Amino acid sequence: MASYSVAPLQKLIEQFEKLPGIGAKTAQRLAYFVLNMPKTEAEEFSKAIIDAHEKIKYCSICCNFTDKDKCPVCTSASRDHSVICVVETPRDAMAMESTNEYRGTYHVLHGAISPLNGVGPDQLKIKELLARLNNQEVKEVIMATNPTVEGEATAMYLTRLLKPLGIKVTRLAYGIPVGGDLEYADEVTLARALEGRTDL
Amino acid sequence: MASYSVAPLQKLIEQFEKLPGIGAKTAQRLAYFVLNMPKTEAEEFSKAIIDAHEKIKYCSICCNFTDKDKCPVCTSASRDHSVICVVETPRDAMAMESTNEYRGTYHVLHGAISPLNGVGPDQLKIKELLARLNNQEVKEVIMATNPTVEGEATAMYLTRLLKPLGIKVTRLAYGIPVGGDLEYADEVTLARALEGRTDL
Repeated sequence: MASYSVAPLQKLIEQFEKLPGIGAKTAQRLAYFVLNMPKTEAEEFSKAIIDAHEKIKYCSICCNFTDKDKCPVCTSASRDHSVICVVETPRDAMAMESTNEYRGTYHVLHGAISPLNGVGPDQLKIKELLARLNNQEVKEVIMATNPTVEGEATAMYLTRLLKPLGIKVTRLAYGIPVGGDLEYADEVTLARALEGRTDL
Repeated sequence: MASYSVAPLQKLIEQFEKLPGIGAKTAQRLAYFVLNMPKTEAEEFSKAIIDAHEKIKYCSICCNFTDKDKCPVCTSASRDHSVICVVETPRDAMAMESTNEYRGTYHVLHGAISPLNGVGPDQLKIKELLARLNNQEVKEVIMATNPTVEGEATAMYLTRLLKPLGIKVTRLAYGIPVGGDLEYADEVTLARALEGRTDL
């Protein structure tokens, strides 16, 4: 391959290879695709990367991404500011939004407690969450961290912090996913679904 | 989702969505990943796109991508310049190179004849190929276009152009792929493998 490597192309391929889930072959395909784009489109792409980095910052209330000082959810009058849904990442908040069911606000931790990876409570936006609880009339905090060991640990940690403040702390329900197949559900999920069964 | 869309982020997601094989979810994941990169890395990525577009052009001989006037293969003294391997795209040339078996040169057509898509011989780098045949001492042209209808048509078209010039024109062998399973080989491939059987 050495004889055909073109430095700027190789560099672009390497950049794509850094992205998650993009292997060597896909990176090559993407790089060639970008190379075949009209120049204006490539410039747009290049600019979008820089723009995203320069313009996007954390909302001063909920720590979600925004290009203003406060995000649209935190400034919205139609949202219920007495409910805070605690999520690990902005993408989780986006997933919650896509349900069109949730009308409260969010708090983005930007991670989960994970001692193995050296992430302790101090690295997360927990201080910011506590500040919100002191300033506002918050009635409920919904723990919507991931159902993983790290997510659970984070939810547990926060629960122990918030309960003494007299705030209602809830957790997303565990159970069988809608449209799933009981036969293929894992034992833990099924046990949790049984445990959390509701009246009909 | 509307309430949480951040314009610069949305734009970056859209840019990733344009890439081949990248759906809405993956585009989101990639955009968030880029956003979480250190700023210097993001700048590097952005620059790589522009650089690739500005610095890469076609080799004046073989029409492959290069950042110089002539590509490394065309200028190499250790390559056999009397053999030209005709491929559809630069990626095909890269694939040939990765075999480490081929020591001749390439010619990149940048496409294949496809009347349905409005691609005729004039849109391909065929004139450039003919010019090479006139200038140089070329003994053999290997047709390495894809084994698709378009690739076959292109190979046929070129063969009819080159044969009268007294140049040896060959085609990559058809047959069963190494490591494949005879049981799962399609009929056409198997028939071609039988037809092209070699002495042991």
